[in-house]
Amino acid sequence: MHTPGSSVSGYALLLIVQVVFIIVFGVCTDYAKEVLPPKNETVSAEPAEESSLRKYPHFQDIHVMIFAGFAFLMTFLKRYGFSASGLNLLVASLVIQWAIIMRGCYEMEDGIIPISLGNLIGADIAAAAVLISMGAVLGRTTPMQLLIMGIIEIAIFAGNEYLQLELVKAVDVGGSITVHAFGAYFGLAVSFMLRPAKQSAKTGPLECSSYSSDLSAMIGTIFLWIFWPSFNSALVDGADQERAIINTYLSLAGATVTTFVMSALVAHEHKFDMVHVQNSTLAGGVAVGSICNLMIHPFGALIVGVTAGVISVLGYRFLTPALMSSVRISDTCGVHNLHGMPAILSAIFSSIYASLATEETYGSSLVTIFPAMQAPHKLENPLHYVVGGYGRSGAKQAVFQLMAIGLTLVIAVVGGLITGLILKSPSVRVLEEVELHKDDVFWETPSEEPTMSSTSEPPPQQEGTPH
Amino acid sequence: MHTPGSSVSGYALLLIVQVVFIIVFGVCTDYAKEVLPPKNETVSAEPAEESSLRKYPHFQDIHVMIFAGFAFLMTFLKRYGFSASGLNLLVASLVIQWAIIMRGCYEMEDGIIPISLGNLIGADIAAAAVLISMGAVLGRTTPMQLLIMGIIEIAIFAGNEYLQLELVKAVDVGGSITVHAFGAYFGLAVSFMLRPAKQSAKTGPLECSSYSSDLSAMIGTIFLWIFWPSFNSALVDGADQERAIINTYLSLAGATVTTFVMSALVAHEHKFDMVHVQNSTLAGGVAVGSICNLMIHPFGALIVGVTAGVISVLGYRFLTPALMSSVRISDTCGVHNLHGMPAILSAIFSSIYASLATEETYGSSLVTIFPAMQAPHKLENPLHYVVGGYGRSGAKQAVFQLMAIGLTLVIAVVGGLITGLILKSPSVRVLEEVELHKDDVFWETPSEEPTMSSTSEPPPQQEGTPH
Amino acid sequence: MHTPGSSVSGYALLLIVQVVFIIVFGVCTDYAKEVLPPKNETVSAEPAEESSLRKYPHFQDIHVMIFAGFAFLMTFLKRYGFSASGLNLLVASLVIQWAIIMRGCYEMEDGIIPISLGNLIGADIAAAAVLISMGAVLGRTTPMQLLIMGIIEIAIFAGNEYLQLELVKAVDVGGSITVHAFGAYFGLAVSFMLRPAKQSAKTGPLECSSYSSDLSAMIGTIFLWIFWPSFNSALVDGADQERAIINTYLSLAGATVTTFVMSALVAHEHKFDMVHVQNSTLAGGVAVGSICNLMIHPFGALIVGVTAGVISVLGYRFLTPALMSSVRISDTCGVHNLHGMPAILSAIFSSIYASLATEETYGSSLVTIFPAMQAPHKLENPLHYVVGGYGRSGAKQAVFQLMAIGLTLVIAVVGGLITGLILKSPSVRVLEEVELHKDDVFWETPSEEPTMSSTSEPPPQQEGTPH
Repeated sequence: MHTPGSSVSGYALLLIVQVVFIIVFGVCTDYAKEVLPPKNETVSAEPAEESSLRKYPHFQDIHVMIFAGFAFLMTFLKRYGFSASGLNLLVASLVIQWAIIMRGCYEMEDGIIPISLGNLIGADIAAAAVLISMGAVLGRTTPMQLLIMGIIEIAIFAGNEYLQLELVKAVDVGGSITVHAFGAYFGLAVSFMLRPAKQSAKTGPLECSSYSSDLSAMIGTIFLWIFWPSFNSALVDGADQERAIINTYLSLAGATVTTFVMSALVAHEHKFDMVHVQNSTLAGGVAVGSICNLMIHPFGALIVGVTAGVISVLGYRFLTPALMSSVRISDTCGVHNLHGMPAILSAIFSSIYASLATEETYGSSLVTIFPAMQAPHKLENPLHYVVGGYGRSGAKQAVFQLMAIGLTLVIAVVGGLITGLILKSPSVRVLEEVELHKDDVFWETPSEEPTMSSTSEPPPQQEGTPH
Repeated sequence: MHTPGSSVSGYALLLIVQVVFIIVFGVCTDYAKEVLPPKNETVSAEPAEESSLRKYPHFQDIHVMIFAGFAFLMTFLKRYGFSASGLNLLVASLVIQWAIIMRGCYEMEDGIIPISLGNLIGADIAAAAVLISMGAVLGRTTPMQLLIMGIIEIAIFAGNEYLQLELVKAVDVGGSITVHAFGAYFGLAVSFMLRPAKQSAKTGPLECSSYSSDLSAMIGTIFLWIFWPSFNSALVDGADQERAIINTYLSLAGATVTTFVMSALVAHEHKFDMVHVQNSTLAGGVAVGSICNLMIHPFGALIVGVTAGVISVLGYRFLTPALMSSVRISDTCGVHNLHGMPAILSAIFSSIYASLATEETYGSSLVTIFPAMQAPHKLENPLHYVVGGYGRSGAKQAVFQLMAIGLTLVIAVVGGLITGLILKSPSVRVLEEVELHKDDVFWETPSEEPTMSSTSEPPPQQEGTPH
Repeated sequence: MHTPGSSVSGYALLLIVQVVFIIVFGVCTDYAKEVLPPKNETVSAEPAEESSLRKYPHFQDIHVMIFAGFAFLMTFLKRYGFSASGLNLLVASLVIQWAIIMRGCYEMEDGIIPISLGNLIGADIAAAAVLISMGAVLGRTTPMQLLIMGIIEIAIFAGNEYLQLELVKAVDVGGSITVHAFGAYFGLAVSFMLRPAKQSAKTGPLECSSYSSDLSAMIGTIFLWIFWPSFNSALVDGADQERAIINTYLSLAGATVTTFVMSALVAHEHKFDMVHVQNSTLAGGVAVGSICNLMIHPFGALIVGVTAGVISVLGYRFLTPALMSSVRISDTCGVHNLHGMPAILSAIFSSIYASLATEETYGSSLVTIFPAMQAPHKLENPLHYVVGGYGRSGAKQAVFQLMAIGLTLVIAVVGGLITGLILKSPSVRVLEEVELHKDDVFWETPSEEPTMSSTSEPPPQQEGTPH
């Protein structure tokens, strides 16, 4: 019944891609200046070096989120834990290399991408977008489809990131617009293209959790929850960074409380639902992403989190089933509720707060937080002026914030639709219905005894049960 | 048979509490000065900012302990993993907000609580006390009872912490007195009030572990073990901090070795007991808490740890069952053995080391470590003089250390008894006996197949077994 | 059938060892100068203190690898999770104390080992060697045998480390030679001595994984993977450190992609094998260890990782079974493929890169990276000159790199053989064949019901099944 895991050609292709990456790294990258050995004369290079390494604890926190957080969060399916934890590692390992290249295209110096710790942070953050998309289609793709999706997505991601941050000059330190919204809607568009035939548009027999898989998903949830303040604050410094940490911490706390409340209120018999607890508790981190370094004040952070928790639980309860039954968009991990809607919320909040930003509130940091608000005579790149110019008012910045989320949504959806089309092309193996959400198709799995018996004899019920 | 998870009114009340917190945050808190954008003139604000953010890696380590360590440690019960990991997240998310407010009452400036990273560290540490108490009553309360307990406990905790550290001026950088002893005896007092009727005072049918729940509890144990040096050293700096790290590391190592030895010696057939390994290995971190920054020398740290390991295992083996059978105090996680007794041990040690403290040993850091030993002419607050005064000798400080643990025990027990009384009041839903230690009462749980079969067919024993 | 877990005498001996350690710590160690309270006059002690504490985040990352990473990686056996996670904690807790003493012998000042954070980092790294060896014999020893092995191994490890780094002056910042090669071949030699009788030289009935044990092993894999850049970069600073981070990150990514490719290519039905994913993905961290701070450039790091992934998977697929069937060396965790061969690869690469090292490439950091390349007139210790001298050329350094790995292999194998002989001596209890890979021999294990039923009634198949 089962076809082999995959054809050899797919893996050979992957190996070729890896070799190509090595060549590109050889030709187009090198250590950044601060990573080079100090020249004999310049002994005072210390401070510059410090500035990048100072981010190393933040980097490691994000690294935990990408490689442990996402991995275990996706193990909630009862028979898809090998894929969730293993393919997360594979996909992320491939796309971080690719992200260094693609993102590097926009920061080349003399045709060379200078590699420092900053590039690794950027690559990890880019991988988050792909892993979010992976959550939307979890269990419905082959490993090869995931990798193709990742390669295409990173290329589009890098372009969109450059567009929003450097040209539109949107404010988005936590990546709600460029990472969460982008990843979620890209993944949903792919999922739409891979939608099942009408007659089988229902939840698969293995598209559910077990007691132990729900618990292992909590490992992912909790580590994501813990390190989210690092994710949101990694790209800023000083007081900005401390605000980002405080606001994210409070937003997550508020979202968590509301998630439990809403989960009980909307659920059968008023019991808590693990799906909500595993996901909606994190919506507070997404919703505060674009504004975490702004002067939203502690109570503002709580309001953002509380709102995100409410929206996210309601999304899981009502919207996801509706999307499935109406347009057959399946969203295995509910990324629309954890990443999509909270990210849009964050963008809207960022527009509001941008409109209120004044030098009185932000002092000299106004122009570091909102680079486009600096006086136009500091213009460097004419293209910037065409797109947004400098010397923006708060109200103008507010419009650009909305433009950033709008453009991101369009690019993500169009990109995702095209990607989905490619993933469905005849040359790509797709899953049959019986193969959905099932490790055994691509993994050697242990032939399980029905129980972890504490004796070494085979458990009696397996022999003695009459068949 | 099952009543609904909880009444709607409970969750509505929780939502109201969250809204009230938002209002209080709005009225009474704001970013601390260092978290505000720098004013245009003062460019040299850097150093001040640094000082707080420098603690961020320590904060994140503690954050892992609170939200992953405690959560997974409590998953050792075979059917209470959703509650352990989920309610840990809920309770902690609520009480960190409340702790910022309550602890902030004692550090207000112009009626406003200034929020910085330090407040988040303080809130996380305060949450530890509540989670310790939660361990004592684990599986014997409704979520609502836990939340009520947390709210009351934090209020008392904050007052007691201020009393011991600011008025009594006790030395307790690792929080053994203010966190571990307080949390443990508060929880035990609550547990005493919630004690079962005489005829049912026995271990419940679900008050035990499974092979997999014991393993997931080890996730908690190991992360707590790893990051305990950060917990104990977070509030000190420089050489003090490095001593706190070294002493905690050694104490934990000593406690771990002794735990295994004692576990084998006192156990049936001289086998290791997972309960001891999960808990008593950590007693070394508690027992060194109050003295970790003192000049106890590496061998002293080892002696403290070894002693703690012995006491803790003996407590699990003999004292906990005795407390249950004699006074019907159930202690699900054995917090008395992990937190209670080792914390008292730490207080006693702190008294001994305080009595030996001289300027010869501590140099200029004597008065930073023991603030009450500084000369009395530096008096700022008359109240301080009334309570303990300055210019204390080592012997006098030793007495105050004992006073701190004594007062803490009294406050914790009285507070816990009153809290327990409230939790038993007629308006609060309490668990029936069949609902103890069981996720299903408050959680949607997956209907489990007997095995995670590697084929998609339903496993035969479920169909074929004659009923 | 089962003998008791162990005789009391073994645990009593362990307690005596712990007491001896305390005495040795009391007599031979004290806080290093920077950990002492500052003397009254010297207020400017700050910078010195900083230098050591600056490594604390790195230390904590390594701490996670040793105590969580190795622990959970070894839980892959279906009925050996208690031992894997618990004995990892016990063995590591004992040997870190012993490693501080043994390693300290080579850095004593006035007969006292000065303890600072650096010693803890060194002790954790030394523990890694023992845990690697433990992986080779996992499930085939008693706890007491593991502890004896650890004690002997640390003593030899410390001597070998001093020999290679201080006398041979090999370059090995990531410890591939002194930790990974040493630990792996030491363990394999022990395993050879403990080899089973000919007729039973086959995989034991419990020497396999279950679905859930494979997932919990992934916790270990992923945390090791995440923090490996910290392991490799902990002992260097500035630009060297940043290069070590970048190179390790890329090497791991490359190894991971290749591991999946090779796993599918060599496996049955082209499916992924969890053993490869759990282990070979990490080979990239080992293979880049000795060279991670050298100018290998990003593409060089990728090539190293890719090569390691290929070698490691092929080793698991072909070499490990061959070693078992030909010379009856069992290697439970496949440490030869994860640590052994990639470490030799790293040493070879280090020789190549050393031969290419010039002042032109490395500038003033040449002599900090390759200490033996500094001019001979800076000679301090005549012994150094005898062994390797200073003023080495790159080519000479290359030879010394090969000498370091060669000497390490000889010392590890001879040390392991002797250790194995001791572990087989008549006074030491050895496991019988039915006791292999089984927690129940040394642990109280929960009597498992066949299913985690979601109702509180006892599951029917346990009562109703006819026996």
